[in-house]
Amino acid sequence: MSKLISKVACIGGGVIGGGWIARFLLNGIDVAVHDPSPDARRIVDEVLENARRAYARMLMAPLGPEGQLTFHDTLAAAVAGADYIQESVPERLDLKHTVIAAIEAAAPRDALIGSSTSGFRPSQLQEGMAHPERLFVAHPFNPVYLVPLVEIVGSPANTEAALDRAAEIQRETGLKPVRIRKEIDAHIGDRLLEAVWREALWLVHDDVATTEEIDDVIRFGFGLRWAQMGLFETYRIAGGEAGMKHFIEQFGPALKWPWTKLMDVPEMTDALAGKIGDQSDAQSGQHSIRELERIRDENLIGILQALRANDWGAGETLREMEDRFFERAKAVARATETDYRASMVLHETRVPGEWLDYNGHMTEFRYLQVFGDATDAFLGHIGMDDAYRSAGRSVYTVETHIRHLAETKVNTRLSVKSIVLGHDAKRIRLHHEMVDEAGQVQATAEHMLMHVDTEAGRASPMAASLTERLAALSPGQSGLEVPEHAGRPIRDIGWPEPEVS
Amino acid sequence: MSKLISKVACIGGGVIGGGWIARFLLNGIDVAVHDPSPDARRIVDEVLENARRAYARMLMAPLGPEGQLTFHDTLAAAVAGADYIQESVPERLDLKHTVIAAIEAAAPRDALIGSSTSGFRPSQLQEGMAHPERLFVAHPFNPVYLVPLVEIVGSPANTEAALDRAAEIQRETGLKPVRIRKEIDAHIGDRLLEAVWREALWLVHDDVATTEEIDDVIRFGFGLRWAQMGLFETYRIAGGEAGMKHFIEQFGPALKWPWTKLMDVPEMTDALAGKIGDQSDAQSGQHSIRELERIRDENLIGILQALRANDWGAGETLREMEDRFFERAKAVARATETDYRASMVLHETRVPGEWLDYNGHMTEFRYLQVFGDATDAFLGHIGMDDAYRSAGRSVYTVETHIRHLAETKVNTRLSVKSIVLGHDAKRIRLHHEMVDEAGQVQATAEHMLMHVDTEAGRASPMAASLTERLAALSPGQSGLEVPEHAGRPIRDIGWPEPEVS
Repeated sequence: MSKLISKVACIGGGVIGGGWIARFLLNGIDVAVHDPSPDARRIVDEVLENARRAYARMLMAPLGPEGQLTFHDTLAAAVAGADYIQESVPERLDLKHTVIAAIEAAAPRDALIGSSTSGFRPSQLQEGMAHPERLFVAHPFNPVYLVPLVEIVGSPANTEAALDRAAEIQRETGLKPVRIRKEIDAHIGDRLLEAVWREALWLVHDDVATTEEIDDVIRFGFGLRWAQMGLFETYRIAGGEAGMKHFIEQFGPALKWPWTKLMDVPEMTDALAGKIGDQSDAQSGQHSIRELERIRDENLIGILQALRANDWGAGETLREMEDRFFERAKAVARATETDYRASMVLHETRVPGEWLDYNGHMTEFRYLQVFGDATDAFLGHIGMDDAYRSAGRSVYTVETHIRHLAETKVNTRLSVKSIVLGHDAKRIRLHHEMVDEAGQVQATAEHMLMHVDTEAGRASPMAASLTERLAALSPGQSGLEVPEHAGRPIRDIGWPEPEVS
Repeated sequence: MSKLISKVACIGGGVIGGGWIARFLLNGIDVAVHDPSPDARRIVDEVLENARRAYARMLMAPLGPEGQLTFHDTLAAAVAGADYIQESVPERLDLKHTVIAAIEAAAPRDALIGSSTSGFRPSQLQEGMAHPERLFVAHPFNPVYLVPLVEIVGSPANTEAALDRAAEIQRETGLKPVRIRKEIDAHIGDRLLEAVWREALWLVHDDVATTEEIDDVIRFGFGLRWAQMGLFETYRIAGGEAGMKHFIEQFGPALKWPWTKLMDVPEMTDALAGKIGDQSDAQSGQHSIRELERIRDENLIGILQALRANDWGAGETLREMEDRFFERAKAVARATETDYRASMVLHETRVPGEWLDYNGHMTEFRYLQVFGDATDAFLGHIGMDDAYRSAGRSVYTVETHIRHLAETKVNTRLSVKSIVLGHDAKRIRLHHEMVDEAGQVQATAEHMLMHVDTEAGRASPMAASLTERLAALSPGQSGLEVPEHAGRPIRDIGWPEPEVS
């Protein structure tokens, strides 16, 4: 489904390789995997499960069809016919050289090769290659399916075209490529992390703080700032109107102060590793690694969604990815030319656990969420798409009448059947019926929808293309029955007569 | 309104002092300020404006009454009668000594003194004090009104009791105090920041990356992770089931690798400061400092709210602060003996960014979420609590009629006024009106609620205690008017007549 690549090969399927695989697949790209480890398939499956769950919760857009995942016994079979190859094997230069040589021998001549290496420079990896210009570093951050950063590093042997194309491919899978201007050991991210790591090791070593206290200083303090602005932009604000240069000059003296022990590097003795292990157990041992992954992913999803609401930083990257998912969904709908008129079942979903209320069934407002999604699907069906909306026209719900007829339980598969009750130049009267897998009606909704000019902020006539689609949906033509409760108000009950005492 | 302190004095009213002042005031605590600078009042006002805006957007709870703010020409007048004094004067040891001596001379004997110093150790600040045990470092992070971390650092001269009390006071204003175990130059946060800073200076100096590229590596990469988990917990996950100690040991060799230039410190020459200034202008110069502050605050609010939804990290701190705001609101309501019968405004909330839809206003189903919360508040008000429910009785919504009357925007503060339209032995007919802060009606809802025996799964008569409360809420008794749209159905529109062609 990608415009740029038709097939990706991933060599190495650990946590990082698995993250790459998940990102490509969920973005609709076929992935061929080679990893000699007997654990590879299990690890990839676990990462994929986390990624599918995360995308379903994070994206407002339909997920769309995944790419096809295949495992191959040989590296040559995996890279055959691939346009892009991502290498994520363990961090040993001799092993990387062997794998890269094998890729070069079997892959198409013009396939790009990205390496996930966190430490090696591209020129080190390119040693001995016949065509070094197509190999570069594409260094991601865990979890690869959620964190958007990928560092793209080339050497003087690389062509600009190859690096540009690499960045374009990453962008197509929702990543944020940052091109590093000069190759350097550990690139940028891991250098900054290494600096913090060495300082943190001293703090634990010297008993100034435990691992938990250091983590708290990060996540309750500057870590919150760094999720949205980095070091320099944050300091720019702190410096105020005096200007950045003036502010930075004030830092000069502090560079001479004993504010760090980094002139020296701590020895990773058994005692220090053991101390960190024990402190970390005390800090996080109540959660399994699986639980911590889920907690981390939930938090990252929330943070990314919050930034998306402001269209800022990683939230902008997420919004762009979501736009592509919407595009893909539309392309699929067009390709299958579904004729919904017979059934008008345009929306289906499943009740997740977090939709329950204290009574143990689906919370009141989630019913309207399902009906609202059905309304959106209906509007898409009659031709109201982003192109229509971007011309300043939309449809708002002005009235809703819901009848709750059953206690909808967790994991129930819901489908919504829609009927047009009537329409005029500006309005659509729509009815939805929500049924479970056994066909039992859970709830119904009647809506009055108003077509609006969004800039003027008032009702406006809809385009002829919409009214034509609507006309084809009249009960006479569609064969759907108008339910007898349609148009009824909520029953009047007044106040009880005072009891005669 | 604090249980622990009645009056705070803030000495120094710059950006950090102003942040402290805002945090204390908005948490209902009186603050006396002394700052000889002619700009102090303006800066404090600007910080306060940002903080008020931020709290109104961040907190679901009513803001409640602020503490009283007073400015004083002399330090002695500001600290007179204060239980807690926060010193935030410029970072010069001689100046700090002078100010601390003046505080000690004029403040009550048992007042605690916190210093905002980012670099000095408490024992350095305590030199020459008569009662050094009550002075400690309370080092906050900018913006102080939003970022919860405060590092509490004592010296051997401090009593545990004083440091415990300091932490309790910080916690009461929504801060997260982290006690540092040993005094050390620059405490913890600024040491970690200094390490990153020095590494980043080299990267700019050597033209490996610009300030913008470094910031992007942070905010699209590990900065997202650090808003919710720190260094050690993140690596624990990366290490997987093999355990933290095993994983950490693998880092050992990397400590010998040339992954950092930190053994050396860059010289802050004019050329380097100028380069950073120019790059920062290119990166962020399109926004004024004021705009950047607002963008930063909006992002931090969104991140904190996202973490609150998961009750994790800084989100847990926010939730606890919000709980205190709700408690304060209830205390105020009790003190003023608000009779809800007159107004029946039982639920208030604010529209967070993640409630928006593609039209840029509140998503359809969020209206029902707000109305559903108002229904819950109403049910609580008439006496349906957890105890009532645990006896197997509850109230379900069986029908809902919503009218959308405005396009509700992000961060609008919504309040819902409720009216009982009628009731019988098993049913309540309830009406809600949702208004914004200007009093404009955004939407209305009419509900039919059914009292049920949850075990039998069928309608059942409600307890006499509930019907009694309901009877007191009749329009005659409460003086509330029944809206004329109540009981009306959604208007019937049929199919347009075929055009004669």
